[in-house]
Amino acid sequence: MSRGLSYRDAGVDLEAAERAKEGLADLVASTRDSFTLSELGSFGGLYAVPPDVESPVLVSSADGVGTKLKVAFAANRHDTVGQCLVNHCVNDILVQGARPLFFLDYLAMGVMEEGMVHEIVRGVATACKENACALLGGETAQMPGFYAEGEYDLAGFVVGVVEREKLLDGSRIREGDALVGLASSGLHTNGYTLARRIVFDVLGLGPDDELPGTGRSVADELLAVHRSYLGVLSGPLEAGIVHGLAHITGGGIPGNLPRVLPDGLGARIERFSWEAPAVFRALQRVGSVAEEEMDRVFNMGVGMIVVVAPASADAVVGGAAQRGVAAWVIGSVGRGAGVTYA
Amino acid sequence: MSRGLSYRDAGVDLEAAERAKEGLADLVASTRDSFTLSELGSFGGLYAVPPDVESPVLVSSADGVGTKLKVAFAANRHDTVGQCLVNHCVNDILVQGARPLFFLDYLAMGVMEEGMVHEIVRGVATACKENACALLGGETAQMPGFYAEGEYDLAGFVVGVVEREKLLDGSRIREGDALVGLASSGLHTNGYTLARRIVFDVLGLGPDDELPGTGRSVADELLAVHRSYLGVLSGPLEAGIVHGLAHITGGGIPGNLPRVLPDGLGARIERFSWEAPAVFRALQRVGSVAEEEMDRVFNMGVGMIVVVAPASADAVVGGAAQRGVAAWVIGSVGRGAGVTYA
Repeated sequence: MSRGLSYRDAGVDLEAAERAKEGLADLVASTRDSFTLSELGSFGGLYAVPPDVESPVLVSSADGVGTKLKVAFAANRHDTVGQCLVNHCVNDILVQGARPLFFLDYLAMGVMEEGMVHEIVRGVATACKENACALLGGETAQMPGFYAEGEYDLAGFVVGVVEREKLLDGSRIREGDALVGLASSGLHTNGYTLARRIVFDVLGLGPDDELPGTGRSVADELLAVHRSYLGVLSGPLEAGIVHGLAHITGGGIPGNLPRVLPDGLGARIERFSWEAPAVFRALQRVGSVAEEEMDRVFNMGVGMIVVVAPASADAVVGGAAQRGVAAWVIGSVGRGAGVTYA
Repeated sequence: MSRGLSYRDAGVDLEAAERAKEGLADLVASTRDSFTLSELGSFGGLYAVPPDVESPVLVSSADGVGTKLKVAFAANRHDTVGQCLVNHCVNDILVQGARPLFFLDYLAMGVMEEGMVHEIVRGVATACKENACALLGGETAQMPGFYAEGEYDLAGFVVGVVEREKLLDGSRIREGDALVGLASSGLHTNGYTLARRIVFDVLGLGPDDELPGTGRSVADELLAVHRSYLGVLSGPLEAGIVHGLAHITGGGIPGNLPRVLPDGLGARIERFSWEAPAVFRALQRVGSVAEEEMDRVFNMGVGMIVVVAPASADAVVGGAAQRGVAAWVIGSVGRGAGVTYA
């Protein structure tokens, strides 16, 4: 050891990390709004509580992208997973009636690859802009020996706000309410460990091969961006017609819808009221996956369920269609518990 | 494939994940306060903005534990890293004058080991309680194929609040101000890639061996909990005597102190005004690490720097001592830029 050990010798290159981050300043700046008080590089991000909210309740959620990242690695396409992450988090607080204020990300990789970091954060910033949400900060961690070359983990945190009296807590849900399903854009961010097993191991496909029956490549189908429902639901939320919302993530409809139903009420889902998209049918057929397992692992084409009075259902379906999102009345609320398929 | 593929076959066990989380409900509940409006398991965590703050600014920070986790893996001791994470985040928003409101964590592992998850989250919850901060939620992700058995990644995210006029933004810092250094409890969460290289690779030590010159085991020394400075600094912040704060993390004093100094002002640090603890001297000696490199990679015994008028320095030093934290006047603010050692 002639000149002694340095951090760079040990595998951490602080200067490369700085360079990788510099190119992101404009991206992050593009998400700023009038309440964003801090610049990139401050210890903590600063955000003023909007003064037009009388009794503000903060709603916060943390999430990751899960093994959908493995598909991004295989396809070497890194600009969509950040969008999935932001949209997932935005949907999670939307179900309590909140609109997003700001977002922070956590990106961990073994070796800092400048181009890849830029692509990932570009996805995060793009979705932040689309959701009118400031990208307030984040952490990019170099962790040699944790992640294989070209691999990373990505997590995020959102903070939103809702007027206390507009908080959705299930108390407005009534027997007889209609369940409107809003179309997902694909698998969103759930079930990827099973989907990858079927597509890559059982079928032996690569990212550029066609996923049978879908007319799209494996990469296009499996990397489709998790849809944000903020645009579709802002109107109905402001109009006060929404009784409840359930974001359909891991656990599917049976695992998520009961989380927002009050005691004594259950949901009846009409299985044939909508058609599961081709990707789900392909996965089920090739993997010989039981129907009940499919329902528990995947969203089956429904990314968000809106609980409304029956008289409001058409307005929600029509409003969604105007924004290019298919929607269907997929069932109703009745006495009981949990989810029953009919 | 006689009975078809299931999620469990593919490596994800949702029921084991549920069991691992159940034992955490009490831990999380113990961090609740009167502003915490949600229970564990809701989509988003709910927290009311404290009404006693007139013009509230939210301050938020995301961080990870970095490769200190590798030491926890080697020592099979998982209850300290969560404390490091929370305290690190709390310090990051403290430097802007904010007190923490709530925290969310992101824990990712390949296989869900119930005991380990419990230990990790216990550390998170313990530190949340100590910092009067609600553990509002989090994500525990099973990602088979991402993390080796017994390994995981852990990140977190804090939201705090500060009265707008009490925001610390550097504007109160004046030429001639004193720099008070508050003792760190060890390496905190920085420089572990280099430290591990020296301790495990160069010295060939194991977690239970003594780290030469420290009188403590490698595990005890390298897993020492990152100190929170909230307790020491709450008084001085309320009294309004703090002109600025710098949390000494990656980049050391030269990398962090200038981040809070206004244009035209620099810092002069008296290198011999405090003694770097044995662990840093041992790492430097064994690794033949250049002094400048040590200053850039490690905190060298100073975890937080408080900028105050010279007349207030004794009060800060004395107040810290009363709480068991050593403190020293380590330099002063003068015209110029950056950090100069004398």
